[in-house]
Amino acid sequence: MTDSALHPFDRALALEADAGDADLFHGHTSDDYWNMVGPFGGITAATLLQAVLRHPRLLGAPIALTVNFAAAIEAGAFAVRATPIRTNRSTQHWLLQLSQVDADGVEQVSTTGTAVTALRRETWSELDLVRPQAEAPAQTPPLNTSGKGVAWVQQYEMRAIDGAFPGTWDGSGEHSRTRLWLRDARARALDFPALAAMSDIFYPRVWLRRATPVPAGTVSITTYFHTDAAQLAEVGSGYLLGEARGQAFRNGYFDQAAELWSEAGELLATSNQIVYYKQ
Amino acid sequence: MTDSALHPFDRALALEADAGDADLFHGHTSDDYWNMVGPFGGITAATLLQAVLRHPRLLGAPIALTVNFAAAIEAGAFAVRATPIRTNRSTQHWLLQLSQVDADGVEQVSTTGTAVTALRRETWSELDLVRPQAEAPAQTPPLNTSGKGVAWVQQYEMRAIDGAFPGTWDGSGEHSRTRLWLRDARARALDFPALAAMSDIFYPRVWLRRATPVPAGTVSITTYFHTDAAQLAEVGSGYLLGEARGQAFRNGYFDQAAELWSEAGELLATSNQIVYYKQ
Repeated sequence: MTDSALHPFDRALALEADAGDADLFHGHTSDDYWNMVGPFGGITAATLLQAVLRHPRLLGAPIALTVNFAAAIEAGAFAVRATPIRTNRSTQHWLLQLSQVDADGVEQVSTTGTAVTALRRETWSELDLVRPQAEAPAQTPPLNTSGKGVAWVQQYEMRAIDGAFPGTWDGSGEHSRTRLWLRDARARALDFPALAAMSDIFYPRVWLRRATPVPAGTVSITTYFHTDAAQLAEVGSGYLLGEARGQAFRNGYFDQAAELWSEAGELLATSNQIVYYKQ
Repeated sequence: MTDSALHPFDRALALEADAGDADLFHGHTSDDYWNMVGPFGGITAATLLQAVLRHPRLLGAPIALTVNFAAAIEAGAFAVRATPIRTNRSTQHWLLQLSQVDADGVEQVSTTGTAVTALRRETWSELDLVRPQAEAPAQTPPLNTSGKGVAWVQQYEMRAIDGAFPGTWDGSGEHSRTRLWLRDARARALDFPALAAMSDIFYPRVWLRRATPVPAGTVSITTYFHTDAAQLAEVGSGYLLGEARGQAFRNGYFDQAAELWSEAGELLATSNQIVYYKQ
């Protein structure tokens, strides 16, 4: 298989294990998932999780992932450090860090994070959230993402049920909720890194709420995974139903809550993020 | 002022700055905030945040706090390491760690975390969450916490509007939502560490949902702060209105979302946690 035969997501997540340090991985930013001034935050979150999943000491599967965007990531090479700081009988706690070497040869940390992985056992289970009502994907017209000017958006097929990108920036916003169907533009079977990336797919709620394009960027995102390999395999390359809502916007920061559901009605992930905005 | 004249919360949060290392603080567990087999998770979260707030290089005020409970904390001395890993013009990113020296003299990390602090500027602000309806605190009878067998619960006055602790463990649970008024049992002016602690005040939703006392414990909690010093001063020692709901319970882990409101209707903090449970 040639490199270009790989899915763009897999190319973006390609990590080379360091020869001498089991916690260290080497990667390179992806033009396919580039945002305005750096990588799409979701691809960075997925990359940190990928280092955990590639680690020889991994126990179990992802339960929780927090990623903090401390500084801009430059186009080029980076290193990811994933340290299993504590391994218990059924849970494992990880410290995560993405760094780049700057022009002066100094290592600069641009992203930090933590993750929890765990062995899960079958238990009593229940869903208290209710899946949003939505017309089937085929009845929901796809968004035209080609004119949005950023590369990563074109890696996804999105069909907005409501709360699409504001058509005009006229200050007319009334709510901060988006519901959409989404999947990879080029088919790819869902896995944990893809879920981590898709949890960050919702554009800043402040744009929708205000219909005003103020500068905004995610500062920290936390995603909880409610799924497992068998369920992911059932979803395959099918659509997910995503919902995101802003909660509190105050003096430069707001939070947004999101859920990702399978088309069959399973809640795969819940995610929260806090976002910087101006004005 | 004698030590016993201090509020129990301030005694629990007392940290001694290390003589040689600005990132290091020394503390001791508190009997007042003891839970069943370790400290109340909220007091641990508050302690990690307190180290940030005590740090000589602190920039701004708390925006986000994630705390991962990696292992049990033993009664006794502990060390907190708060490292400002990246300081930008208006934001600062922190790595947090709580460790204890075990019987063999080896340092063991029991808690990890990250925090973001920031200078906030006045901007357009809006609240998209709606404060729950609730009778005034005086119309809501206080919970009798004295028989609950754990010390920390008695440090808080709680008045449940609905979703009180199950009266009988008969498997009759139907929902996972609690709404309550809360404040320190002994009056204390609200601050960021107190908010961090109160964000963890809601007992595991799985107990309410199932009316069944299965083993359960928080694995990771993330709290976003939507307030500032001036607003906290207005709240003072007044009541907060808290709500918590379970979302997805599946194969050993569930998540719960919570909000803390001032009595005047301001949203002070939103919080999410993922919780381990058995059976």
